[in-house]
Order: sequence, then structure tokens, then C-alpha cells
Amino acid sequence: MKGSLGARAHAGGPPGVMEAGGGTSRPRVSFRHATRDDLDAIVRLLADDPLGAARESYSTPLPESYRAAFDVIRADANNELVVACLGVDLVGVLQMTFIPHLTYKGGWRAQLEGVRVDTRVRGRGIGRALLEWAIARARERGCHLVQLTTDKARPEAKTFYESLGFAATHEGMKLHL
Amino acid sequence: MKGSLGARAHAGGPPGVMEAGGGTSRPRVSFRHATRDDLDAIVRLLADDPLGAARESYSTPLPESYRAAFDVIRADANNELVVACLGVDLVGVLQMTFIPHLTYKGGWRAQLEGVRVDTRVRGRGIGRALLEWAIARARERGCHLVQLTTDKARPEAKTFYESLGFAATHEGMKLHL
Repeated sequence: MKGSLGARAHAGGPPGVMEAGGGTSRPRVSFRHATRDDLDAIVRLLADDPLGAARESYSTPLPESYRAAFDVIRADANNELVVACLGVDLVGVLQMTFIPHLTYKGGWRAQLEGVRVDTRVRGRGIGRALLEWAIARARERGCHLVQLTTDKARPEAKTFYESLGFAATHEGMKLHL
Repeated sequence: MKGSLGARAHAGGPPGVMEAGGGTSRPRVSFRHATRDDLDAIVRLLADDPLGAARESYSTPLPESYRAAFDVIRADANNELVVACLGVDLVGVLQMTFIPHLTYKGGWRAQLEGVRVDTRVRGRGIGRALLEWAIARARERGCHLVQLTTDKARPEAKTFYESLGFAATHEGMKLHL
């Protein structure tokens, strides 16, 4: 995710359908759960990113591993792929994982991963609205906490998440196997 | 988790049963998945911690919310509670969550949370052995990455995880709802 995502604050309002940038002539942004037909567009978004380019493979046909992972995610009630659409175009994506924990007296957390917005539509508040939708979804699922990790190579992303109320209280540590 | 966890390196070897501290007369440390009978001891560990004390409630009987959360975790194939035992005593715990993602061409990650070792047995390498067991379990589950977040208020924990190969490449961001 790029810092430009947060460059224009969205005025808020209930998640669902919103005006992108407040204009009446622009296509409306909507949010929904992904279907299998969205997979090509999602992987294109994941790959169209300086960090993603090195680890994703967007080709036609799509590598089978993506379809297999999509089916596993869709079949799991604790994982949801959320997409943002501008008219008929898929322009944003994130994954939500709902995790039951013993900590905090047995509380659920929502975790966000794979947040991306199409480079062509950045600066319109779509990323912010997508995050606000996800935060509302986390409340709906009864979560007491929303969490994510963001690469330190993207300091503007940290600033963006802070503007949404996230606090960088933790180190995000990774061990590649 | 305290830094003293990592004060004595464990020599390694296959996860399972190990000698604690290398002595032959000491009880052996073993690792297994938690059962419902372990719940009281687990919550006691979670609460016996400077950060945990503020957010947990260890009492007899245990608040029902812990039992409900335990049952949800046990019923979910993608969540596992792992305990370390020294003889018959439960002395360590962590939770593993296995998460399917589209990123990295559709790869599974293992996430660790709620890592605790009994203050009375720290410095014997039990935390290190518990982490090594969890990393081996992540490999067994086909994960390409193990991840966790650790509170910046515990800098010694970061050092401990780095000694196990984790890199603090990310900000760990939290939003309390």
C-alpha cells in the first residue's frame, strides 16, 4: 500500500456503498466479499506493487496455487476476502482473518493482510474507506481488536494506519522457513 | 515473555521431549497440545505477567469466557494451543494459528500469540525449546513463514526472537475497538 492512499480523507459514513471523492458523476465505490471470478483481478493487484512483484506471479492462466488458496479461504468461516469495486472494476482488496484467543479473557481479534489499492485510483480515499469497512466488519464479528503488520519499508503506510487509529505498539517479526 | 527465556541456548534437536538445561536429574520438558484440564494453569500463566495482569482475570472458578474461547480454539483445525510441561507441571504456553493467504502465490503462514513461560523456571531454555517446537510444527503444516508481534515494551523479547531467526521487518499495529 502506498501513502497516497491516505492523502484524501473520506468523510466517513456507514460502510457499504460510498461516493468516491464526493463527486456525483464518478462511479460509486462498493465493498463485498470476493468471488472466484475476482481472483485474476485480485492477483494482478497483489503483483502490481514494489514488494509484491518479487513474490507474486500474475500470468494467464493464473498459477493453480492461487485458486487452491482461494478455495481454502472461501471455505473457512474465519477468513474473508474483501474487495472494493469502482463501478464494475475491482480496485482494492484485503484479507480478514478472525482469530479466537485466550488472551483478553478469551477475545476475538480481526487481522488484516494483503491490503492493496489499484495504483490508478489512489488518492481518492478508497483505501481509507476499505479499511473503515473492514473495521466495521470486525465490530460486527464481535472482535475487540483489529491488528495488522506493515513493512517498515513503507513508512507512509504506517502513517496512513495511524490516521485510522492504529498504534504501532508492537514489532512485527517474520521468520521465513 | 521475558528476556531471561533466551538466556541459555538450547542445543537443538528434534522437538518433542528434551532435557531441560541438559541435566540428567531434572524433570524432562515435553510439548503437547493443550486439553481442557490445562486451562486453569494456562490462564494463570497468561495473568502472571506485567502486561497480562491488566487484561486477564485468573480466579476460581475461571471466568466462563475462557472456557468458551478454549472450546472454539480446540474445535478449529487452524488453531492449536501448545503447552510445555516440566514433569507434570505446565510451565509454558503459546497459541498457533495457521492462516491461508493469497500472497506468496497462495501460501500458509503460522502465527504465534500468547507466548508465556512460568517465571519460576525461566533461564533454562524452555522458551527457546517451545519456540523451536512451534517452528517445527509450522514446517510440518506446510507453512512458508512464521510470524508474531511482540510489544515494544519488551525489548528483550525482540532480542530473544531475533536469536531464533526472526527479523523485525514490520510494524505491528493494533486498533482497540
